[in-house]
Amino acid sequence: MFVGAQAFRRLEWSPVELASRTARDLSGIINLASGSPDPSVIPVKELAELFEEMVREYGAKGFLYPGAGGVPELVKELRSYVSSDLGIDIGEGDVLVVVSGAQHGIKLLSQLLLEPGDIAVTEDPTFWEAVDPMRFQGARLVGIPIDEYGMDTSKLEDLLRRGLKPRLIYVIPTCHNPCGYVMSLDRRKHLLEIAEEYDLLILEDDPYRPISPNPPPSLKSMDRRGRVIYVCSMSKVLAPGLRIGFVVLSRDAAEELSKLEQHDFSTATPIQLLVARALRKGLVRSLIPRLRMHYKEKMDVLLGSLEEHMPGSYTKAECGFFTIVRLGVDAERHLPKAIASGVIYVPAKDFYIEKKLPDAARISMSTQPKEKIAEGVKRLSSSLKS
Amino acid sequence: MFVGAQAFRRLEWSPVELASRTARDLSGIINLASGSPDPSVIPVKELAELFEEMVREYGAKGFLYPGAGGVPELVKELRSYVSSDLGIDIGEGDVLVVVSGAQHGIKLLSQLLLEPGDIAVTEDPTFWEAVDPMRFQGARLVGIPIDEYGMDTSKLEDLLRRGLKPRLIYVIPTCHNPCGYVMSLDRRKHLLEIAEEYDLLILEDDPYRPISPNPPPSLKSMDRRGRVIYVCSMSKVLAPGLRIGFVVLSRDAAEELSKLEQHDFSTATPIQLLVARALRKGLVRSLIPRLRMHYKEKMDVLLGSLEEHMPGSYTKAECGFFTIVRLGVDAERHLPKAIASGVIYVPAKDFYIEKKLPDAARISMSTQPKEKIAEGVKRLSSSLKS
Repeated sequence: MFVGAQAFRRLEWSPVELASRTARDLSGIINLASGSPDPSVIPVKELAELFEEMVREYGAKGFLYPGAGGVPELVKELRSYVSSDLGIDIGEGDVLVVVSGAQHGIKLLSQLLLEPGDIAVTEDPTFWEAVDPMRFQGARLVGIPIDEYGMDTSKLEDLLRRGLKPRLIYVIPTCHNPCGYVMSLDRRKHLLEIAEEYDLLILEDDPYRPISPNPPPSLKSMDRRGRVIYVCSMSKVLAPGLRIGFVVLSRDAAEELSKLEQHDFSTATPIQLLVARALRKGLVRSLIPRLRMHYKEKMDVLLGSLEEHMPGSYTKAECGFFTIVRLGVDAERHLPKAIASGVIYVPAKDFYIEKKLPDAARISMSTQPKEKIAEGVKRLSSSLKS
Repeated sequence: MFVGAQAFRRLEWSPVELASRTARDLSGIINLASGSPDPSVIPVKELAELFEEMVREYGAKGFLYPGAGGVPELVKELRSYVSSDLGIDIGEGDVLVVVSGAQHGIKLLSQLLLEPGDIAVTEDPTFWEAVDPMRFQGARLVGIPIDEYGMDTSKLEDLLRRGLKPRLIYVIPTCHNPCGYVMSLDRRKHLLEIAEEYDLLILEDDPYRPISPNPPPSLKSMDRRGRVIYVCSMSKVLAPGLRIGFVVLSRDAAEELSKLEQHDFSTATPIQLLVARALRKGLVRSLIPRLRMHYKEKMDVLLGSLEEHMPGSYTKAECGFFTIVRLGVDAERHLPKAIASGVIYVPAKDFYIEKKLPDAARISMSTQPKEKIAEGVKRLSSSLKS
């Protein structure tokens, strides 16, 4: 056989994908690995109705090629959503580009911005899936420690002073994945000051804002110099399987992003029109307060259970879906034992950039009901004691 | 402003996208530019019903993350479609990977296979959108002339003898875009022989097979050594806005392709399940004979009209949507005049690799009803005479 892997560039499986596959094959397991939104809050009935309405309105036109950049109806609705519901100021010079999920946006931006040898700065740890496309482009990652106030921007400043020249600063400032931290307003200001001083470009990944109870202003809103590219997603507020995300960036940059979209045209037209309708008819707006409460309550259960069974071991997540728990034992090696106890998590070693922490586990509360979250933590704790 | 285009890699707009945008803003124009399938044969009602059924069966599960490689239901149905309906033998060692359109597949394969300086061989002319991702990877394109028997494989052999070392041979052997030619069986055999002798990898792009009346065996079917990667699409047989395509390749290679899909996860889950259902319930199979006749009749009208009004100017397309017409004047400069006469086409200069032909136009019959195709050709011919 010729067309074997030797002809292809090699990649790694995501630790999240690997854990998800394992979980799929196991029944009765409590899945604290999945980063998927809660299936119980996906507005299934409404999505089905909207699809039917969309077909009635558009007919065959609803099934033609999408064109690059997003269908105009969705671009218009998303612009209004971003400013009214997410409270983000889109500048006059800014353009919103539809992508098939924030992940797709990050990949395309990596292709446009990064070349072999370029440096991308990230929080340490960071979201594996977001930075793997950067690595694939040949970029070298530099991790900056994160604490409960977000990325330690003074550490970043130190490195810049000593000559670090990053091509891109990638941050998840609000409801960090995997730590759950929210960057403080002071650090946000500091990051933007540094960006100005050292001529930096910031990629703000903000998928959890719609479900976050009381988020600080986004970096994009505070940016007056066009230094922030904003990426967000409809995955948490509607459904991840729709594959609808968006990027807000300057007009010239948006033009290149749209041209690169010609290489895949990957956002389904009927789904774009469906989401436009969900926004226009107020479905998304009506869901937001409920979702904020829903995930807040679940996070409280997760952190409360961790405090009860594994005090001191975890990051005090403010929002989002995740916390990092230090198991005290190698998380990868412990996984079969945890699974035998009926719980699964994501070994998080590879979320770290500078120094792998083998005992770190990413624990998610997103897909499980409250009683299962509590039970899952109990099982995890027992599996560690046995 | 900082985040301007100077920070980004620059790309080109596709000549097809540019012409489509122009056409969108003009009323009363006959669009011979669009490569979209005919909206009148998209099974809109059936797709709406299938969506409803899918929601009833899967509920929220139909809206979760797709996972890499495609949902198992769709992979299974596509494998059976490929062998039963397209007549393509999938080897035991071959894996089918779902992508968001053939275009997405070609892009991902370009990322996996091509590095700066690599050579990709194509028919000359070839489909702009397919090769732009190869160029973006830094590959150098080498064009091999195409005639009514397909790529001139003896010319390719000459170049190989003289030391050409291509990383990839990209071909659209059946219903070529933009020429409409079908590669002869002899040339297919020859290409595979050459591939064996010179250790070549072939990317077979085959989106028109489902609507082609009597296609020869695909290269993939004739390939016993794993030298052919097969890419196809549901765009022509169901609808292009669904963004469902697939790639068939060896297991090891498929694994890398799926890992690369983790970088975008761009194929919408509900649409994957919808298409699986359309295959399982026989919708796709029932459409195929009708579509083959439909497009054959339209192609006959196009070629008949060209023979009447512009004899000798065009490639004798056997199938697909396109023919190349030599206008005798610069096609780009003539376009405003054609538009004033009520017809639009794609200036095809940039479809050529080795030597641009400024008077070449890509003419499509796919979206227009028969009477408009004839009228469009008449208008084009008049615009050239005036």
